[in-house]
Amino acid sequence: MNVRVGVIGVGMIGQDHIRRITQVLTGGSVTAVNDVDAARAGQVAAGLPGATTHATAQDLIADDAVDAVLVASWGPAHEEQVVAAIGAGKPVFCEKPLAPASDACLGIMAAEMAAGRRLVQVGFMRRYDAGYRAMKAVLDDGGIGAPLLMHCAHRNPSVPPYGFTTGMIISDSSVHEMDIVRWLFDEEIVAATVLKPRRSGQAPDGLQDPLILLLEMAGGVLVDDELFVSARYGYDVRGEIVGETGTVALADVSEVTVRTANRHGGRVPVDWRDRFIRAYDTELQDWLNAVAAGTSAGPSSWDGFAAAAVTDAALEALRTGQRTAVTMPERPDFYVKAQ
Amino acid sequence: MNVRVGVIGVGMIGQDHIRRITQVLTGGSVTAVNDVDAARAGQVAAGLPGATTHATAQDLIADDAVDAVLVASWGPAHEEQVVAAIGAGKPVFCEKPLAPASDACLGIMAAEMAAGRRLVQVGFMRRYDAGYRAMKAVLDDGGIGAPLLMHCAHRNPSVPPYGFTTGMIISDSSVHEMDIVRWLFDEEIVAATVLKPRRSGQAPDGLQDPLILLLEMAGGVLVDDELFVSARYGYDVRGEIVGETGTVALADVSEVTVRTANRHGGRVPVDWRDRFIRAYDTELQDWLNAVAAGTSAGPSSWDGFAAAAVTDAALEALRTGQRTAVTMPERPDFYVKAQ
Amino acid sequence: MNVRVGVIGVGMIGQDHIRRITQVLTGGSVTAVNDVDAARAGQVAAGLPGATTHATAQDLIADDAVDAVLVASWGPAHEEQVVAAIGAGKPVFCEKPLAPASDACLGIMAAEMAAGRRLVQVGFMRRYDAGYRAMKAVLDDGGIGAPLLMHCAHRNPSVPPYGFTTGMIISDSSVHEMDIVRWLFDEEIVAATVLKPRRSGQAPDGLQDPLILLLEMAGGVLVDDELFVSARYGYDVRGEIVGETGTVALADVSEVTVRTANRHGGRVPVDWRDRFIRAYDTELQDWLNAVAAGTSAGPSSWDGFAAAAVTDAALEALRTGQRTAVTMPERPDFYVKAQ
Amino acid sequence: MNVRVGVIGVGMIGQDHIRRITQVLTGGSVTAVNDVDAARAGQVAAGLPGATTHATAQDLIADDAVDAVLVASWGPAHEEQVVAAIGAGKPVFCEKPLAPASDACLGIMAAEMAAGRRLVQVGFMRRYDAGYRAMKAVLDDGGIGAPLLMHCAHRNPSVPPYGFTTGMIISDSSVHEMDIVRWLFDEEIVAATVLKPRRSGQAPDGLQDPLILLLEMAGGVLVDDELFVSARYGYDVRGEIVGETGTVALADVSEVTVRTANRHGGRVPVDWRDRFIRAYDTELQDWLNAVAAGTSAGPSSWDGFAAAAVTDAALEALRTGQRTAVTMPERPDFYVKAQ
Repeated sequence: MNVRVGVIGVGMIGQDHIRRITQVLTGGSVTAVNDVDAARAGQVAAGLPGATTHATAQDLIADDAVDAVLVASWGPAHEEQVVAAIGAGKPVFCEKPLAPASDACLGIMAAEMAAGRRLVQVGFMRRYDAGYRAMKAVLDDGGIGAPLLMHCAHRNPSVPPYGFTTGMIISDSSVHEMDIVRWLFDEEIVAATVLKPRRSGQAPDGLQDPLILLLEMAGGVLVDDELFVSARYGYDVRGEIVGETGTVALADVSEVTVRTANRHGGRVPVDWRDRFIRAYDTELQDWLNAVAAGTSAGPSSWDGFAAAAVTDAALEALRTGQRTAVTMPERPDFYVKAQ
Repeated sequence: MNVRVGVIGVGMIGQDHIRRITQVLTGGSVTAVNDVDAARAGQVAAGLPGATTHATAQDLIADDAVDAVLVASWGPAHEEQVVAAIGAGKPVFCEKPLAPASDACLGIMAAEMAAGRRLVQVGFMRRYDAGYRAMKAVLDDGGIGAPLLMHCAHRNPSVPPYGFTTGMIISDSSVHEMDIVRWLFDEEIVAATVLKPRRSGQAPDGLQDPLILLLEMAGGVLVDDELFVSARYGYDVRGEIVGETGTVALADVSEVTVRTANRHGGRVPVDWRDRFIRAYDTELQDWLNAVAAGTSAGPSSWDGFAAAAVTDAALEALRTGQRTAVTMPERPDFYVKAQ
Repeated sequence: MNVRVGVIGVGMIGQDHIRRITQVLTGGSVTAVNDVDAARAGQVAAGLPGATTHATAQDLIADDAVDAVLVASWGPAHEEQVVAAIGAGKPVFCEKPLAPASDACLGIMAAEMAAGRRLVQVGFMRRYDAGYRAMKAVLDDGGIGAPLLMHCAHRNPSVPPYGFTTGMIISDSSVHEMDIVRWLFDEEIVAATVLKPRRSGQAPDGLQDPLILLLEMAGGVLVDDELFVSARYGYDVRGEIVGETGTVALADVSEVTVRTANRHGGRVPVDWRDRFIRAYDTELQDWLNAVAAGTSAGPSSWDGFAAAAVTDAALEALRTGQRTAVTMPERPDFYVKAQ
Repeated sequence: MNVRVGVIGVGMIGQDHIRRITQVLTGGSVTAVNDVDAARAGQVAAGLPGATTHATAQDLIADDAVDAVLVASWGPAHEEQVVAAIGAGKPVFCEKPLAPASDACLGIMAAEMAAGRRLVQVGFMRRYDAGYRAMKAVLDDGGIGAPLLMHCAHRNPSVPPYGFTTGMIISDSSVHEMDIVRWLFDEEIVAATVLKPRRSGQAPDGLQDPLILLLEMAGGVLVDDELFVSARYGYDVRGEIVGETGTVALADVSEVTVRTANRHGGRVPVDWRDRFIRAYDTELQDWLNAVAAGTSAGPSSWDGFAAAAVTDAALEALRTGQRTAVTMPERPDFYVKAQ
């Protein structure tokens, strides 16, 4: 079966997903696009044989030539668009965040539960990274015993000189670790604390960078996450789980080792695309496969909500300097099965 | 454009390529199959909606619903099938070897030159491996100066207890290095020598394993290639190019590092599929893209011939214990341009 | 010049230092020993040609055949012995802790300042480890920019099943990181916080293991130190400094890489001796050289005091669960110059 | 016991050994020096309290204040000096080569056998390197099964622009691998072949660099040794033994890993001293200990002879381009026991 995808939001991420569906993955095609910038939508559609442009997201969702919807618009628009897709009974892949506000995520969940089946996959692509998957396999096989601790680092070479706030280090960067630790340990995060190390002189004015985010898992596992968005030297995502009898860590990802000028070593990725491009491919193929099969896969609305709830707590912790409990309802039975 | 592929030979490799075209890659579909085992062909076709089964390779090639042909039959049948595809003006992907005998390869080249355009891609998938590609990029960027030497190792955990001969270590295993060094250094191999180290007690009776194959490139680069098909511990392909100012080597490929029981380290692949699955995917996608674009890509018939000619020399060297020159004509202009 | 050393305390550590002086290092000999266990002192002396046994530490210190004193008795005895050596004008090497109580350390400092010259070296051997030295060299050369963060881990395979308390994880284990970060960053620690991750089921009853100790440096560098004394898999000391433009980390210390059974990797040390034996050698040679030269070297009484003061704060933080400021006077000018 | 050493030859190596004995090792002192350059001998002696200068090597050997002799003169003088020391019944440490000519080595052996006890240790320091020792331990423990192959590389950043000949790559550089493989596999080398890869444009005029030296062990193990003395990027000694069930390789020797400018990695040593300084220390301490104990240790005269005999064969192989058998008598029983 060929899944006909309508894409809402054709900025950088949206266009990248379109490239992926049309040039890399199997089983999908892009039949409709929409964007708040109609001209941009038109330009993108011009490169897609047979694709139509819709004036509104609602029109796109209603299009009979659209089997499934990919939401890559800006965050505040997600709730309405995802709920509309659910209302139309169409599977929807929503880039992170599911919605910036945790309440909005709850609204999406309510709509989905009312629809009676899982229709939403959230774009937490790290779950599809070969490194994290191998890490989880070691953990699940019992190779290092029960997990006790995890050390993470999330380093970006730089952020834009203006407009990137300290809060965005939490909401944009650390949200990836929030999701991945929930997935690795298969339990919720119950509290967050934010520590402020010495500020880098390389950080844009006003940005408190780096940060240390401490996350406490329901079962007691403690996660420390170094967040450093002005790390200069490269894009580097690190992780080590410490278990009762051993540890497992993400390996470096260089394809070759070079020896020159009294140094030996490998390369560090230049950006997130370089590091995670395969994970994005695998993620979206998984979605297309699930849509074609009439099933669901990957991170759910509940996962999107949980990330938002932990983000709320972490932002509060950043403001107050205090350990802050995460406020969450029980997970509805509807979302219990991981799939 | 969707490339409709007819597959000749649906054993393990053929079926794997069918899985790849239908479940992993974009832009292709399998519309026809043929196999010397008609029952097997029928079973495979049954799993492919809309695919037909042909009694002969010729019928498959002639089928109007076949845009391009994938040859995965046994080696001795390749020549006739590839020449037939060329005769029908259809692009053909031929698994290695292009043909077991170098003369047969010359016949294919003659047919292709007569057709007036490049229609054949040979299945040397290592050229698509991320490791070798990064290695070539370092080399071509001048990062290690002019190449002088290359050390290779090609280790398989085991071979079947019966039927695998010492000559097959040359023709089946080392052929991959023969091709990759021609591609890395962009020049021909002019001589081969085979050395016999101490034989492993783990090797099947009668098998001289390991071997060292020495290959001399036209420009003087010397390649030593350890071939060890009873290496037990895993499937391990190694390579290091030594240049005038530095070296570049394939890195280990483990996704994670584990620390347990007073050891730290990563995993070694279990088999060639584990190690090179991505290269196979990239290779066949490149072929589908080229077919759709009406161009050609990847290893050519000349590359297939060169591998056969070097194999001839290496087998002679194995028999005689002597350094053996490779006998090759000049490369026809038709094949000078890489693609 | 040959430095004639009197050794107070000839348990495991004392005997190891005697072996070092007599069989490994140059420029020293052991001429006198003392121990609370007189029989043990006699046995050790019997293996040292020309060495005498003294009934008390005071007698040993007063012995004209003793140029310098090595204190390896139990911690509570250190203050009196070190002060006595200072009183006798004899250089003294004191194993850590300089004294368990920070007040006692201040007493030693007062005695030393009264004596008018630096006579005390404290046994923080990590400053002599090739790894930490290379790390400091990279930092001091500006290769990674100004330091912002440091991640440490201090893992022991196990501790005795009885008698090892959670407080000892702070006072015995983390004291090494307390000293090394002061040396690496050349500034004081101003506050400590202790976090309690999930407890390992492999830890002895009643032991809260692992812990995370957070140390704040005067200049803002934040250190997180994983302390895990039931880590089972080996003795593993890790460290990574994150600077404004790069990071530097201790490398793994295996001499060889082994490939067997689908794994590649190296060994993890079995215990502190295995990991730091060279640092102990270098440390004590440095002391002997300084004594012979009439100078002083290595960690001073002030360093011993600072470690005790930070230990006090960290133990308080462990008890209260709160961030606890370190209480310290200004560093006397007497101790400002590193050596 | 203090071993009073007389040093013959106080050039760079001789002075380094003097520094070692007086400032690093225990149990030895330098009491006499001799050099063909009397002024240099005098200058060196001036820095050694109590040391005397002798006009001739014979005088030094005869000095009652000399318990043992260290020969660091130029190679052609070794035979006479070593034989004289043997004649005086004094243990002698002789820097490599034991003698440039294998016949001269046989002469030394004859003298030693006549003396009735092992008096000579040859300066093959790699046997004392922690890496090779760990490698041998893995091999001897059976961890990788029976050895089949070994890959070596011996890379120097550069050699003097004049006077360093291609033959010296064999006699000065590869001699270290000749000895270490005999020690690792505990058997003799029976044949040598030299291959000439593409010559580096960085090599001095007239120097064929790099070379590949093939060594065949008596039991069939085949060793390939890349010799490259213009490698520019650093001093790099590599080795991997391939066994029936696994491999063991020398690990990289960097103390730290640095991440900067999109690279991660460690350092490569700058020269042999940087790489092997610890091996030299351990080697000479072992000699001093053996002398003090009245025993012998380390590489023997037989090992020195064997290296010379293999060098002869390899030089012949270099000249002729042919595989050349090593000509050696049976090992005398006198030398059968390792030490």
